[in-house]
Amino acid sequence: MPRVAFIGLGAIGSPMARHLAIPAHDLVIWNRTRARADDFVGTTPARIADSPAAAAIDRDIVITCLPVSRDVESLLDGPEGLLATMPRGAVLVDCTSGDAATSRRIAARLAEHGIGFLDAPVSGGVVGAEQGALTVMIGGDAAVLERVRPVLECFGKRIVHCGDVGTGDSLKAVNNALLAMHIWGTAEGLVALEKAGVRAEVALDVINASSGRSNSSMNLFPERVVTRAFPRTFRLALLDKDVGIAADLAREQRVPSPLLQLTAELFRIAHDELGELADHVEAVRVVERLGGAIIGGPREDASRDGGHE
Amino acid sequence: MPRVAFIGLGAIGSPMARHLAIPAHDLVIWNRTRARADDFVGTTPARIADSPAAAAIDRDIVITCLPVSRDVESLLDGPEGLLATMPRGAVLVDCTSGDAATSRRIAARLAEHGIGFLDAPVSGGVVGAEQGALTVMIGGDAAVLERVRPVLECFGKRIVHCGDVGTGDSLKAVNNALLAMHIWGTAEGLVALEKAGVRAEVALDVINASSGRSNSSMNLFPERVVTRAFPRTFRLALLDKDVGIAADLAREQRVPSPLLQLTAELFRIAHDELGELADHVEAVRVVERLGGAIIGGPREDASRDGGHE
Amino acid sequence: MPRVAFIGLGAIGSPMARHLAIPAHDLVIWNRTRARADDFVGTTPARIADSPAAAAIDRDIVITCLPVSRDVESLLDGPEGLLATMPRGAVLVDCTSGDAATSRRIAARLAEHGIGFLDAPVSGGVVGAEQGALTVMIGGDAAVLERVRPVLECFGKRIVHCGDVGTGDSLKAVNNALLAMHIWGTAEGLVALEKAGVRAEVALDVINASSGRSNSSMNLFPERVVTRAFPRTFRLALLDKDVGIAADLAREQRVPSPLLQLTAELFRIAHDELGELADHVEAVRVVERLGGAIIGGPREDASRDGGHE
Amino acid sequence: MPRVAFIGLGAIGSPMARHLAIPAHDLVIWNRTRARADDFVGTTPARIADSPAAAAIDRDIVITCLPVSRDVESLLDGPEGLLATMPRGAVLVDCTSGDAATSRRIAARLAEHGIGFLDAPVSGGVVGAEQGALTVMIGGDAAVLERVRPVLECFGKRIVHCGDVGTGDSLKAVNNALLAMHIWGTAEGLVALEKAGVRAEVALDVINASSGRSNSSMNLFPERVVTRAFPRTFRLALLDKDVGIAADLAREQRVPSPLLQLTAELFRIAHDELGELADHVEAVRVVERLGGAIIGGPREDASRDGGHE
Repeated sequence: MPRVAFIGLGAIGSPMARHLAIPAHDLVIWNRTRARADDFVGTTPARIADSPAAAAIDRDIVITCLPVSRDVESLLDGPEGLLATMPRGAVLVDCTSGDAATSRRIAARLAEHGIGFLDAPVSGGVVGAEQGALTVMIGGDAAVLERVRPVLECFGKRIVHCGDVGTGDSLKAVNNALLAMHIWGTAEGLVALEKAGVRAEVALDVINASSGRSNSSMNLFPERVVTRAFPRTFRLALLDKDVGIAADLAREQRVPSPLLQLTAELFRIAHDELGELADHVEAVRVVERLGGAIIGGPREDASRDGGHE
Repeated sequence: MPRVAFIGLGAIGSPMARHLAIPAHDLVIWNRTRARADDFVGTTPARIADSPAAAAIDRDIVITCLPVSRDVESLLDGPEGLLATMPRGAVLVDCTSGDAATSRRIAARLAEHGIGFLDAPVSGGVVGAEQGALTVMIGGDAAVLERVRPVLECFGKRIVHCGDVGTGDSLKAVNNALLAMHIWGTAEGLVALEKAGVRAEVALDVINASSGRSNSSMNLFPERVVTRAFPRTFRLALLDKDVGIAADLAREQRVPSPLLQLTAELFRIAHDELGELADHVEAVRVVERLGGAIIGGPREDASRDGGHE
Repeated sequence: MPRVAFIGLGAIGSPMARHLAIPAHDLVIWNRTRARADDFVGTTPARIADSPAAAAIDRDIVITCLPVSRDVESLLDGPEGLLATMPRGAVLVDCTSGDAATSRRIAARLAEHGIGFLDAPVSGGVVGAEQGALTVMIGGDAAVLERVRPVLECFGKRIVHCGDVGTGDSLKAVNNALLAMHIWGTAEGLVALEKAGVRAEVALDVINASSGRSNSSMNLFPERVVTRAFPRTFRLALLDKDVGIAADLAREQRVPSPLLQLTAELFRIAHDELGELADHVEAVRVVERLGGAIIGGPREDASRDGGHE
Repeated sequence: MPRVAFIGLGAIGSPMARHLAIPAHDLVIWNRTRARADDFVGTTPARIADSPAAAAIDRDIVITCLPVSRDVESLLDGPEGLLATMPRGAVLVDCTSGDAATSRRIAARLAEHGIGFLDAPVSGGVVGAEQGALTVMIGGDAAVLERVRPVLECFGKRIVHCGDVGTGDSLKAVNNALLAMHIWGTAEGLVALEKAGVRAEVALDVINASSGRSNSSMNLFPERVVTRAFPRTFRLALLDKDVGIAADLAREQRVPSPLLQLTAELFRIAHDELGELADHVEAVRVVERLGGAIIGGPREDASRDGGHE
């Protein structure tokens, strides 16, 4: 059984790591903010390492789950970096929602040390992570994937090999860009309908039985927008980053993609306007403010000058 | 039981009308192209009228299902027009995917003659029409709706009252604009992924288990695009018209809606490029041509003229 | 010499009307706000009428200059409307920056009374109006234009016949849409350069000697933006209206026009954000706020939360 | 007097280099395609080097003028590369219309060898190059600029210091992006007007006396579009590249820039559609084809294949 290190105990990383805490894995963890690591070992059998280098000693697999690919890249070098200790023949599995270009650079650095690399972003959210039911999108060598697959299956229900290094990142980014587009586009339509006299509940009821439906209209709008609940499950700042990665992918591939590019601009605006803590679904607040109507609710917070949170 | 006339025996209208052919309705039909009416009465008990005026004599309800609202408006006047014979107290139910402004004009004309009006576009496609399982979006007076509801229930499973005259049209147009946006946006993403080395089947498999999924990704792309089947079920020309209606709605309501407006431009381009007979899903062919890759298939038809890849 | 009435003594209308105040014209004026008419006759020989109908009595030419075409249309009917008194054979010359569809409706109404119509929007601004050096864009019958040309030459240096009724409006709207696009696009570029360390004065100096220059970069940015002067010479609200007219023109003509359509969305957003009194050049404030940098100046008013006027 | 090498004898590079051919400069040239170097020395006193390395021997200044920054970067290394021979204390002046990121990488490489770097793209076209009247946009150290200024003044009338390395590139890219936007936007407006019945000559005459004018409307459209001359002076492929650089700049600087981004998409489409040899102004052909009308001319070449109008 492979020995495993896990780096990055965020909202998704923590429940993922919990599924890896079996004796055979001899799980070691590291987190930049030490308190999170302390909390983790308070409930889960694992050892805390003092640095990435310490975490990687003797590991067969190091799994990372960080905000952006550059964060992973910055863990490689220096006396406390992964490359100081990580053994030849080991594999770095990066579950960050990253970008292909950085992943390829990381893979090239690791290859110089005889270490394998897979980009392995996940979808399924916190609930999927807790249930060990994530979808894992793999970019990299198929043989390397086979070696680590049993470990990935601890938290992933579907392990999908997408192609070369970076393709996992690219697919994840496109999925999230579609999510973003559907949120914004549905909001545009619902605000216009609201002003024309069609209540959002009625509109969603019809759309969700018709051809314009999406995950956004079926789940996010009824549960989070019409209710004004806006739970903070996935930060707008991260979705902005993902849409940007997808937009860059399309440009690199020279695929004219006006809708993707415009979605990237709109989420950059929303991110700047709503700040770092806002949830991704709160982007609809910008559409509501610009349009001057609230989706499914009274107009109490739509006013232009009543402050846009 | 109300006596019923049905005008417009197209792909959706014909199966709708068939559900109305019960003796109590004394169904009368009219169609601009006579041959279609002849076909209809060959299999269904109904009488053919020689003109809209003739069809409307003594009718309690006249149902229209035509390409655009202007077609309905053009049936009102003249010696053969509906207003020449339609009785006071009757109701015109217009199942056209129309526009609110024209519907309001029609309603005002009819009101001068004591005739009620409902805009009542439907969703559910040919299959829904055949099964009598359409969703019907109603704009107009609620009391008028109650009078005709039993007739509408012959072909509609869900009869949804949206608001004043025109709101049924507006909701239908927004639904279809979202359909259009999802088709185009998903195509942009899939073409970029294809060029990056991710096969469409893999990408759709992941997206459809994730947050970026939509009716388009779950049904249209697997069944029609990846297979290159592109059955002609709903004309691109009509979807272009619908997106235009939704874009106009947002402008009238002063709702900034950059995604909707851009989608309208893109479908106008696609319609001009692919012509009057193309199916709505064939819009992806334009994305494929511009991007230089085929979604899920070999490259055989990606270049216009053997050209730029 | 024709007898003339002038209706609409706004910022452009007043100096235009002043050029018409010669004895032979027997100038009559009307303005909705009476105080403006009083001011006008305090310095210029003209009579004030009590209503549009009173102004139009015995006139050969009635000239209107109002915010939008609908304002002109609303002057036609009723006991105090123009049609109550305006003689057969007279001509209504509408210098409003109007829209072609309304102008065509007005022309049709007037034609029923034997009255001619020209849409005749002007360019040249307040200074051009004061100097009698406006460009006048004429839509309508060429023979009618010849009859009124001497009057138009009182305030117009260039009288350009564009085509049928509405074409003057359309050309004026397209010109203004290009103005709007150049303001916004130049602001995007200058904000990005400012953040990259290139001062706006340097950038404008180079651009204005190069291929990217426009009336906006050569005049508006150096005189109004870099100086933070933002004089209020032409309201953003009116430019928003004009861009909308141009965008509608392109849609009606089925000309795919993604840049025009997007410009229309952006100016709608700017108008909503900056209010009714803002000058058109102040649209750059929205670009500055979104981008987080001031063109050519210190950052004092760029902050997101310092309130955007 | 500094000794000078010049690399890249293209349409702009050749006339620039000609101004440097004075005895004191001891001009050495290199060009990938040898025939061009042979032509050059047939009319101008200069020596041909056999490689970049040979050209750089003993040079105080090496000037490059190539299609893209990567081309310059690729000249640095290897036994025949510039770094093999270029002396410490020399300066590389890169007149390529480049991108800031690559220029910064090049500057960093050169700095390791004690060699200075300036990005120095030019504007003014072939005519400006022939007349020695170019505008030169300089990014890099001001002291380095002062050392090379006399040489730059041989071909440049205005030498503008923009800021750090890369700012010359960025300013040039933004200028060209505005050029691109003005070409496309003006074409959208003129095609719509043409279909509405306003001839392009009339429209341009008015716009060029009004606020919507630009270098494009004043020079390019009258001289090249209305006449259908479309001389090939600056390749669309290169303008596409420049707009992409400007769009990337805005994204890196996190400046929401929907018009710039959309312009980048549109020029990518035009480049793909019209190929590598098309002139930049020919982008209007795509607008004409999509819109179904020719600016200022009969319709003979508006349809791709006799098709959709």
